[in-house]
Amino acid sequence: MTSTEPGPVYRDIREYLAELDRRGLLRRVTRETNKDTEVMPLVRWQFRGLDAAQRVGWLFENLTDSRGRRFDASVAVAILGASPQVYAAAMGVDAVEEIAANWLHAQQHPIAPVTVTAAAAPVKENIITGSELVDGEGVDRFPVTVTNPGSDASAYFSAPIWITKDPETGVYNAGTYRVMVKAPDRLGVLMLSGQDGRAHWEKARALGRPLEAVLVLSPPPALSLCSVNKLDLSEYDVAGALNRAPLELVDAESVDLLIPAAAEIAIEGRFRTDILEMEGPFGEYGGYVGAHDYQMVFEVSAITHRSSPVLQAFISEMPPSESSMLRKFGFEGFLTNELAAKSPNLRKVSILQIAGSAQVAVIELHNPAPGEAWNTLRAAAAARNVPAFKWLVAVDDDIDSNDLDSVMWALAWRVQPHKDVQIQRGRNTDLDPSGAPVDASFSARTYPDGLGGSQILIDATRNWAYPPVSLPSKDLMEHAKQIWEDELHLPTLTPRAPWHGYELGYWPERWARAAQQAIDGQYLDTGKEYETLRTLSSYFDDGIVREPAKED
Amino acid sequence: MTSTEPGPVYRDIREYLAELDRRGLLRRVTRETNKDTEVMPLVRWQFRGLDAAQRVGWLFENLTDSRGRRFDASVAVAILGASPQVYAAAMGVDAVEEIAANWLHAQQHPIAPVTVTAAAAPVKENIITGSELVDGEGVDRFPVTVTNPGSDASAYFSAPIWITKDPETGVYNAGTYRVMVKAPDRLGVLMLSGQDGRAHWEKARALGRPLEAVLVLSPPPALSLCSVNKLDLSEYDVAGALNRAPLELVDAESVDLLIPAAAEIAIEGRFRTDILEMEGPFGEYGGYVGAHDYQMVFEVSAITHRSSPVLQAFISEMPPSESSMLRKFGFEGFLTNELAAKSPNLRKVSILQIAGSAQVAVIELHNPAPGEAWNTLRAAAAARNVPAFKWLVAVDDDIDSNDLDSVMWALAWRVQPHKDVQIQRGRNTDLDPSGAPVDASFSARTYPDGLGGSQILIDATRNWAYPPVSLPSKDLMEHAKQIWEDELHLPTLTPRAPWHGYELGYWPERWARAAQQAIDGQYLDTGKEYETLRTLSSYFDDGIVREPAKED
Repeated sequence: MTSTEPGPVYRDIREYLAELDRRGLLRRVTRETNKDTEVMPLVRWQFRGLDAAQRVGWLFENLTDSRGRRFDASVAVAILGASPQVYAAAMGVDAVEEIAANWLHAQQHPIAPVTVTAAAAPVKENIITGSELVDGEGVDRFPVTVTNPGSDASAYFSAPIWITKDPETGVYNAGTYRVMVKAPDRLGVLMLSGQDGRAHWEKARALGRPLEAVLVLSPPPALSLCSVNKLDLSEYDVAGALNRAPLELVDAESVDLLIPAAAEIAIEGRFRTDILEMEGPFGEYGGYVGAHDYQMVFEVSAITHRSSPVLQAFISEMPPSESSMLRKFGFEGFLTNELAAKSPNLRKVSILQIAGSAQVAVIELHNPAPGEAWNTLRAAAAARNVPAFKWLVAVDDDIDSNDLDSVMWALAWRVQPHKDVQIQRGRNTDLDPSGAPVDASFSARTYPDGLGGSQILIDATRNWAYPPVSLPSKDLMEHAKQIWEDELHLPTLTPRAPWHGYELGYWPERWARAAQQAIDGQYLDTGKEYETLRTLSSYFDDGIVREPAKED
Repeated sequence: MTSTEPGPVYRDIREYLAELDRRGLLRRVTRETNKDTEVMPLVRWQFRGLDAAQRVGWLFENLTDSRGRRFDASVAVAILGASPQVYAAAMGVDAVEEIAANWLHAQQHPIAPVTVTAAAAPVKENIITGSELVDGEGVDRFPVTVTNPGSDASAYFSAPIWITKDPETGVYNAGTYRVMVKAPDRLGVLMLSGQDGRAHWEKARALGRPLEAVLVLSPPPALSLCSVNKLDLSEYDVAGALNRAPLELVDAESVDLLIPAAAEIAIEGRFRTDILEMEGPFGEYGGYVGAHDYQMVFEVSAITHRSSPVLQAFISEMPPSESSMLRKFGFEGFLTNELAAKSPNLRKVSILQIAGSAQVAVIELHNPAPGEAWNTLRAAAAARNVPAFKWLVAVDDDIDSNDLDSVMWALAWRVQPHKDVQIQRGRNTDLDPSGAPVDASFSARTYPDGLGGSQILIDATRNWAYPPVSLPSKDLMEHAKQIWEDELHLPTLTPRAPWHGYELGYWPERWARAAQQAIDGQYLDTGKEYETLRTLSSYFDDGIVREPAKED
């Protein structure tokens, strides 16, 4: 137990919801709301109709469904990734700026979990096993939402934490793989090749055994943040570090696994490794409906849950969404950690939400050494990510890698495509509809032509010294801002970088002299000086300076 | 004369300023303001600190300079391109949506100019010639602004209209080429290779003659809109069409050219074609300070001007700026006209301001035929533009080509780089600092390696039918919007496309059936159906369906 240590950031999701409320970041809906047709369209509007700063988490406390059922449970949507502010709250930090450092620190200082007894585990308040499972509603007793009514094939658990152990090493993994509700005791699951859960499943399959697993729902938020991320450490240990206290685990009822004691719901069972079953389609993180294909089957052996549970749901698919926000911050933390060792001048990694926080990464470097931009791009291309990034762009750190306008400015003026762009194949195209038509064969969709899809790497850093950014000097812009505000009383300014000129390595003394003469109104003196600098117009043909005869 | 015809949209710039005032789009500054150090920093703030919708045109009515002079003249800045609304006002249309159609119509229905007598020409109110030119202040009498004090080498005329005639054909051109103030009777001018004015100069040079020209300032706005654009017709004729009345021209005093009678200022003279002179550096449209190099010399022979003239200035360089707005709308009109004949399914062309409205174009196509996207990209790559576009992207018309987020979504999920990207050399790199270091030779900077810089063409259209965009169906989103507004009274929504799911060609009947069952809450029926669709797990290895034995 942790009673003598400083307490965790959040003991469970209920403590976290109270904090969200305190921060003014939770919207409670007491109106009767249909989980199949109304919950997700409502929350979706805030991603398609409000600015990020206006988005909050939602708690639906009065639920019904299309069958007219009522639920002794609530649904929490977008409570981790509605906005950067909400994400900061989930981490227990005050400011968005602390997120990246907090991720780095947690990866570098993991905290191992502790085990507690079932009596001390809220998730054991209700235990459902045996015939009660199928005779009752089983997994169908919970208000599982339909995320994209109109195209999704079923209700699905959208914020699942799958707990598995490596069949060979016993190392735990917690991964987020979406879950189709098929029967009271049967679920369909999609785990992509390259994901840790899939690796465990493949090992069990090779051993000729099913894979034991527990589907954990609504654990303390730190574990959810880890589960959607790629980590080289056990998610239990990093979640403890993020939560600033060891995660409390408890034995599952019907399988040999330790699960979070403070989760709201745990669904235990086994993955079949001998057969697959039809699954989907559902929306995918790129914003398109995915494939209808054979995927894994999970057979339920027990359910335990807190009374009146809170069922957490991620709102995902069409970016920007909650899921793209979670992946963005999580992958940025992971990638920064991975690249920092290789690139001494790395400043920042930004993963673009609009591309599903998976396809496009922009990397800021400060005065990179020759070759460093390419070393960094190659390391990022090789980073553990499912699938690998499609677009990787290196920029100088005067570019704001999170601002597409700023990145596009770099692409326009710091790139010569024939030198600064490289394309390479060998990329997995799972869930990428540009890989192959959706009704093509499984292998064509996931690895076309036997050669795979491709990545494009772009070095958009300056390859040499540039002349300055052409804006008025900082002091004159500050002076003008005073006139703007104090004398003219014009609309409030929100300065956007760059808002003044700055040097980029090339600024000869005689340019500086002319610039000063212009400020002083003495530019005719510059004109006089230039009159002595003449050449024949053949210069335009061959670039050779030939002094004109004297009378010119 | 045009007295029996419907009048022009704007007879002169003064009528236009009155209309801007009426629309609430003009800010008059009566405070004493220094043209060298204060005017441009003030206007610059609105481009680096206000949203586009808040930006307006400015009129400085009380000017001084760093030498302490005062001016019987005012300076108008950003009066054509402060915002899309201001641009619409300059065209004399009410809505931004009318701009593209108005450009197309004007190019297709040009109106030839008429000539008037000097007595009817306001630009002849004051005539300065001979010794008065040099003994007085010459061109230095006008309040020529310093655009980027701190890096610009001199004051320069930033909104110049250069009138020249083709020495062989006599066809007129009006082009915008920036003008360094060097002496009362001497100016420096940069005309890039590929520009019409440069072609006239090269022809005069080949004939061993100087090139006569008139620098026209503050003409009726229609001519300025044409002058910054690329047109295949005489700017005089298209300006007449935009102004809905023939442009009125008058003979120049000292050269054989017809110039706009209602301009505020005309500076007449000859370009030397035998010699070049040092010029610059000034900020360029990419946002960087350009080169210090040998450029053309213009020798002044006469000045005519209205009393108390309005000197127009463009605020340019670091995009977005007035110049990038002018180029954007102008080039879009030109390119749409040029591509429409070649691409039957062309819907829209968007030129991105942040790239200086020169380097990046995005082309929307509606269900393009096989090959049409590449035909269109090739035609755009070959379009008359100085220099050619660096990034050319074709997208489907469900993408908003003006919205970088939307374009990035297409680049992420509708592109396989090895198939959909082509890079080609042979691009002029004038003013592009990525072409070569700024102190490299003239030829290295303008056409490196003897092979030139490069363009990158990207087909980001779907290459085959895609499954639908994964968002809730339109009716459920509309229903949720009603709940949002009428029952929950939540913050006002600004819907951003896409805000509901839509089909993209692939939507089989059995997917639609499952989706309907999910809406109806009958997804366990789908689960039952899928239980009959199983395969051995070897499917993950080879994609071959092998039905399991019955007991599975």
